[in-house]
Amino acid sequence: MRLYSYYRSSSAYRVRIALNLKELSHEIVPIHLLRDGGQQNAPAFLATNPMSQIPVLEVDGHFLAQSMAIVLYLEDRHPRPALFSQDPFEKARQVEICEIINSGIQPLQNLTVANELGHRFHADAEAKKQWTRKWVEKGLAALEEKLHRTAGSFCFGGTPSAADCFLVPQLFSARRFGVETNSYALLAKIEKNCAALPAFQAAEPGRQMDSEAK
Amino acid sequence: MRLYSYYRSSSAYRVRIALNLKELSHEIVPIHLLRDGGQQNAPAFLATNPMSQIPVLEVDGHFLAQSMAIVLYLEDRHPRPALFSQDPFEKARQVEICEIINSGIQPLQNLTVANELGHRFHADAEAKKQWTRKWVEKGLAALEEKLHRTAGSFCFGGTPSAADCFLVPQLFSARRFGVETNSYALLAKIEKNCAALPAFQAAEPGRQMDSEAK
Repeated sequence: MRLYSYYRSSSAYRVRIALNLKELSHEIVPIHLLRDGGQQNAPAFLATNPMSQIPVLEVDGHFLAQSMAIVLYLEDRHPRPALFSQDPFEKARQVEICEIINSGIQPLQNLTVANELGHRFHADAEAKKQWTRKWVEKGLAALEEKLHRTAGSFCFGGTPSAADCFLVPQLFSARRFGVETNSYALLAKIEKNCAALPAFQAAEPGRQMDSEAK
Repeated sequence: MRLYSYYRSSSAYRVRIALNLKELSHEIVPIHLLRDGGQQNAPAFLATNPMSQIPVLEVDGHFLAQSMAIVLYLEDRHPRPALFSQDPFEKARQVEICEIINSGIQPLQNLTVANELGHRFHADAEAKKQWTRKWVEKGLAALEEKLHRTAGSFCFGGTPSAADCFLVPQLFSARRFGVETNSYALLAKIEKNCAALPAFQAAEPGRQMDSEAK
């Protein structure tokens, strides 16, 4: 398998964690979202994903985009260790947490949206940051409230699940936009527990081959 | 089961179709997104979903938000008729289509975002519409291209799947924002085939108890 990734894309980061937790061997193909007018806009990449977004997982010459689709595929194809509960309602609660991040927060904080705010409404860097913070803070507050009902050391009990794969990258992104994540006590505790695990460590943006944060 | 719904919310519309395709009896609880300062912001509703969004599915007194989580739950709990393929990669492709809509288009077109553009950047009605159309048109073009590889009468072959549950409401929303959906020939064909099925008909916004489009 090949993962088309960018070191500080939170969506790609989710999939890197999931691949590591499942100990699935894979190759990383870096796609630089800023260089060359955005390598995700190059025709060769668009052929893999017409949405011009990473991550994309290549499996036996087939391409699959969207982090949620990829993580669910990895779970179905490689069930152990499990990233979702065997109980349908508990599993759905885990998907719900992933989606609060995947559809509730991230789409409003991404680079393309910020660029469009600048282009269309002349938003400057500070205005873009304030826009992003609004959605991130609303989402993190909802996650903090919801996870109080299910969390142990991790989002759901004592073992990492897909919800943790989505939460940790979101907290990383939040700090990039100036959000003080330590004020979400439960989220910060879960993040700390995740950060102690090699699967999460190896997926960190700063440890990627394409990292520029040296 | 109870579904907290608003007649013209595309996210709630997806779940209505899925419930109908699976012939699951349920009660609809209307949440008016504009009235009373938005009924989704009332404390009683926030207790079910701190993201203040519909749809929410109530099952045995428990609440589940996020349309993707709800549809996957319905599939796990009530597998027949299936809304996803039994093949893991084909299933993932179906989730991918759902997510292009769920995280790639809808979050950028929703009411809260449009309000925020007005509040923060003084966007008027026309500017909001142009903003929305940009994301909708990019997403529909990607869907049209991707679905050419898998479509029959429906998004995936000859029977409706979760992808159709997400596509039809997105086309409905697109027209609300002035997008000419007939220029996406394959999407229009699939929509027409879906519209012939009672499960899709009964889920239409105009047929809901809270519809104002009389």
